[in-house]
Amino acid sequence: MSTSTSVSGKGLLLKADSIAATFRNEVEKTLANCPHAPKLVGILSTSSSPSRTYAEFTRKQCESLGFKFVLKETGAALPNEGLGEGEGVEEAIMEANEDDSVDGVMVYFPIFGPQQDHYLQQLVSPYKDVEGLHVKFHYNLYHNIRFISPSSLSIPTASATGFTGDEAENDIPPPGMVKSILPCTPLAIVKCLEYAGVYNKILPYGDRAYGKTVVVVNRSEVVGRPLAALLSNDGARVFSVDIDSIQEYTKRPSDPDSSRKYHPRHIVRPPPETYNTLEACLAVADVVVSAVPNATYKIPTAWLKDGCVCVNVAAEKNFEKDVRDKASLYIPAVGKVTILMLLRNLLRLQQYKNVSPSSTAGSPAQ
Amino acid sequence: MSTSTSVSGKGLLLKADSIAATFRNEVEKTLANCPHAPKLVGILSTSSSPSRTYAEFTRKQCESLGFKFVLKETGAALPNEGLGEGEGVEEAIMEANEDDSVDGVMVYFPIFGPQQDHYLQQLVSPYKDVEGLHVKFHYNLYHNIRFISPSSLSIPTASATGFTGDEAENDIPPPGMVKSILPCTPLAIVKCLEYAGVYNKILPYGDRAYGKTVVVVNRSEVVGRPLAALLSNDGARVFSVDIDSIQEYTKRPSDPDSSRKYHPRHIVRPPPETYNTLEACLAVADVVVSAVPNATYKIPTAWLKDGCVCVNVAAEKNFEKDVRDKASLYIPAVGKVTILMLLRNLLRLQQYKNVSPSSTAGSPAQ
Repeated sequence: MSTSTSVSGKGLLLKADSIAATFRNEVEKTLANCPHAPKLVGILSTSSSPSRTYAEFTRKQCESLGFKFVLKETGAALPNEGLGEGEGVEEAIMEANEDDSVDGVMVYFPIFGPQQDHYLQQLVSPYKDVEGLHVKFHYNLYHNIRFISPSSLSIPTASATGFTGDEAENDIPPPGMVKSILPCTPLAIVKCLEYAGVYNKILPYGDRAYGKTVVVVNRSEVVGRPLAALLSNDGARVFSVDIDSIQEYTKRPSDPDSSRKYHPRHIVRPPPETYNTLEACLAVADVVVSAVPNATYKIPTAWLKDGCVCVNVAAEKNFEKDVRDKASLYIPAVGKVTILMLLRNLLRLQQYKNVSPSSTAGSPAQ
Repeated sequence: MSTSTSVSGKGLLLKADSIAATFRNEVEKTLANCPHAPKLVGILSTSSSPSRTYAEFTRKQCESLGFKFVLKETGAALPNEGLGEGEGVEEAIMEANEDDSVDGVMVYFPIFGPQQDHYLQQLVSPYKDVEGLHVKFHYNLYHNIRFISPSSLSIPTASATGFTGDEAENDIPPPGMVKSILPCTPLAIVKCLEYAGVYNKILPYGDRAYGKTVVVVNRSEVVGRPLAALLSNDGARVFSVDIDSIQEYTKRPSDPDSSRKYHPRHIVRPPPETYNTLEACLAVADVVVSAVPNATYKIPTAWLKDGCVCVNVAAEKNFEKDVRDKASLYIPAVGKVTILMLLRNLLRLQQYKNVSPSSTAGSPAQ
């Protein structure tokens, strides 16, 4: 038993509430200085009850903090209208894009399946994309472009005008620039890891996860891949584990004699042969994040490194009951932090819209 | 046995070569008037042998017609380099986007799976997207926007400046406008159906498939959904069949007393209850298109309507051997037409780039 565990012999259970509290204060303070309370439109177009629960959760969080929330129901979310699953969702998105009184749009997925849902994500105007799911933002994230010009949200030159974490000395944007928007779930996980002490504040900005090995189980475009990119852009060595493969994400050059300390952004490569199983990766992982939407999927506690930090992102429990026999810290859910990241994005986007000289928030996003 | 079948008692076998011939002539004629032969870059980043075969097929077709073709190999396509599947593909896309000597970019998919591949498709500059896979083009297709301003390829106002098939009297773009780019596989299928006489040239432009019922098996974002949208925007009633659902795509209002003849673009709804099985849909289908990438999947000949037109799009045979006992016409493959649509897109994009006053072909596409 590791010495870092508590008297009970178990690792610490870290609920999201305490992590969320910091951001709740920050969001409330920013909101108090807003000319008007930002309006978020949630679009619910299916009969899925987890989606409706999430929509009601969004409403409760918004209203308790002083944001306006409007739930736009369409398709199978409307009982007795005879509409199909997802019917009208595209029109609802375009309408919210064009409505100047709307500051943020979030769509409750899944609707049609990953491919068509990805199409819908690209239709939300980047100026209103509080979830950070547009390719513009993913491109910035994957390329470690941290600061952008607000007007670049409507013209296709983000990469030409951006600053990477490599060039930046701290997280304050250079004059005329603003922070890019990050997808809210991966960002919430990073914030939880910061809170859990995984990031080392003594290290230089942009490399504060250096020295940490992280396993991320899931490689979706919504959670796993952006998270692996964020962590490796911050210096961590990440093993990205999916059903059929393991990949290594890292900024460090594979050649130890390389003259450069690290690449400006992460590189993805097959892992060394000794790390081609989940078990082998877990044996060296300081942090394990799992986001597998499957109730039967469990990461064996026996495979964990003693004293690691475990984060469960899925609605289902991806870790075994005895996870804290090995983990020094266990975070069972991140949803409450995710919603605050979303509201923080909303406040920022409202500000960017006002700053941008050529605001085209009313135009479709494509 | 239907009277439309030939003396042998079998339906006609229609090979793609004869359909391709018309477009081959058109492409050769346009190419003869080009200031310089357009250059297509194919990006092969996996060890997939079907992808390599397709790349070699592209090269052969390009060179036989007088186009320049450069195969850029990266990742696992390079033997003995120790690179992973898909490694370097993103860099190769950005490089081709920025290279002024490159007129078209095509990427050989699948690489990482549908989600990450969709991300890559959005990175190809719309000015070089010969396959028509960018959300800009899909948005236009789904909204029946047929003509666009060339400069709209770099600014996000395509929908505001477009003309729909509803407004257009024929397929000649209004002054200052050009045709939007259509994804090449669905377009090739439409061209095959035009050739097979499914489109009625006596009907007004934009409604020439009126009266036809079509079953499309597959609802991917690359083939099935855009095809269902194209056909229904042209007036057909389409049953879109996927593993877990059937949807009806049509421009016609569901209310027979509606004052409008048809909507400006197709509406998607659940099918009437009597058409909630593939068997029921096939019983009324004038045209059956199947694109299921599975060698064991077969559409039972017994379910086909006598005299229907069948088109096999998958590399595998989705119809039974005796399909022509029922079908009046059977098109076993469309690949040779697809490549010509791709080259036609290439010629058009080269022209649009030169026309556009604010050409930003060198910028990333996001």
